[in-house]
Amino acid sequence: MYPTTLRRVAIVGSGMIGTSIALALRRAGIRVGLSDKDQDMVVKAELMGAGVALRPGDPPADVVVIATPPSAVVGVLRDAQARGLGEVYTDVASTKGRIVAEAERAGCDLTTYVPGHPMAGRELSGAFAARADLFAGRPWALCPHPATPPEPLHMVAQLAAACGGEPEFLAPHTHDRIVAAASHAPHLVSAALAAGFAGVDESMLSLVGTGLRDMTRVAAGDPALWCDILEQNGEAVATVLDSVVRDLAEAACALRAGNGEGAPGMLVDLLSRGNHGRERIMDRCRAAARV
Amino acid sequence: MYPTTLRRVAIVGSGMIGTSIALALRRAGIRVGLSDKDQDMVVKAELMGAGVALRPGDPPADVVVIATPPSAVVGVLRDAQARGLGEVYTDVASTKGRIVAEAERAGCDLTTYVPGHPMAGRELSGAFAARADLFAGRPWALCPHPATPPEPLHMVAQLAAACGGEPEFLAPHTHDRIVAAASHAPHLVSAALAAGFAGVDESMLSLVGTGLRDMTRVAAGDPALWCDILEQNGEAVATVLDSVVRDLAEAACALRAGNGEGAPGMLVDLLSRGNHGRERIMDRCRAAARV
Repeated sequence: MYPTTLRRVAIVGSGMIGTSIALALRRAGIRVGLSDKDQDMVVKAELMGAGVALRPGDPPADVVVIATPPSAVVGVLRDAQARGLGEVYTDVASTKGRIVAEAERAGCDLTTYVPGHPMAGRELSGAFAARADLFAGRPWALCPHPATPPEPLHMVAQLAAACGGEPEFLAPHTHDRIVAAASHAPHLVSAALAAGFAGVDESMLSLVGTGLRDMTRVAAGDPALWCDILEQNGEAVATVLDSVVRDLAEAACALRAGNGEGAPGMLVDLLSRGNHGRERIMDRCRAAARV
Repeated sequence: MYPTTLRRVAIVGSGMIGTSIALALRRAGIRVGLSDKDQDMVVKAELMGAGVALRPGDPPADVVVIATPPSAVVGVLRDAQARGLGEVYTDVASTKGRIVAEAERAGCDLTTYVPGHPMAGRELSGAFAARADLFAGRPWALCPHPATPPEPLHMVAQLAAACGGEPEFLAPHTHDRIVAAASHAPHLVSAALAAGFAGVDESMLSLVGTGLRDMTRVAAGDPALWCDILEQNGEAVATVLDSVVRDLAEAACALRAGNGEGAPGMLVDLLSRGNHGRERIMDRCRAAARV
């Protein structure tokens, strides 16, 4: 197990991600205090062995993890810092630029807040869907303010590592541009593909194969949570969608113009670029698996 | 093992699909003769234990399987029927409407030809990528002419079942409309997503997760083969792409119009339709797994 100086972590938000972090930290021998605006969620997380409910007189945690939907992070952070809930704060929201700007406007202390985003998820939600190994070998983005001192950075990097994640330091807007392409726009593409099967006759499902099954997996995600994520990263996601839309609209034109005298150059070009992009994605996945 | 009256099958085209069928039939105790315009491919398939090379004096096969790219099927079929290579003929191409129309125009005997399409594949090509279990539990579309007598239908359905597939009888144009939505358009969508990573900085790959990995898997397919498939089903594929393009273009507009006052209705609607379509796809996959 990764050696850690963390002793006590508080987690605000006992959903699937918050409870998965709690389970991973418990495995590493760290004490975990749980809270949620819905007390039922805390009870479920406790039943999973994820820790115990935070109580009013508890000593400050080494790190407070805010595991709420993106739009709730800043309010929770401000409140937690005002109450002195911990020494250092982080969150796990899928967007960073707008949250950091809002935290600054809201007067949060950015020197003890290290914005984070573990690159792992499931299509299921709630504490009972949590898994201790959710973050194993996965990148865990950290987007600190340039003025953040080393100690809070080190504490949050330790937390990520204790969960099995691989800390990656990035500027908030770089993070948002990267996840727009790697996660947020693909989510909408998956939804658009899956949506085509929402109202069809049963016969249209008779030849469904593994390709479509894999491509629509993420489309099962919670619409309300995903709207929150997508709106926080709207321009970057829209830019990626523009490019996908342009390629697919041109492909539709090329298919209609097809005259049976050999593949139109546009389709060959798109499929070849697809091959190359896929190779780069897999090179990266293989490199990460060897770490 | 499924009881079969098949004794001898000839396979024209010793690529990944042809050799996988050969391996599955060999497991079922059926004799397999192999051919390919590239003799090296036959040698590789023999090395895999997929059968032996067809020889000029061989007796007619019970079924001849044409496992070539779509645009080559009709020429091979006409030639094989002229040579009396077998009693019954089938193919495995991913499109059916245009092939059946061309076979009719080319004067092929449609009463001994049962067009087919096993719904299974890999992103790898060539005999060495073949797997005997590739078709296990997978749908295997059969699109016979209404005038086809029962015996050829029965022979080809037996062949599909001997490979572990589940025969599904469909009209050629119904088949093409279904695979446009379930396979051909998703292939282009996967390529368009992957293409976005073809020329990017290494940093853009730093947060790649399992969602993008799964969504771009099929983008690794051979561009020349896929152009051939897509052109054979151009109008049906373009119609599906139109719908995906419309949804994604509207989503990009909604994201840019987002004013932070809650999720625009369009995004919630698209994500909810995506949820519903995904449920239907998974219901079908689960039902198929129970068969």
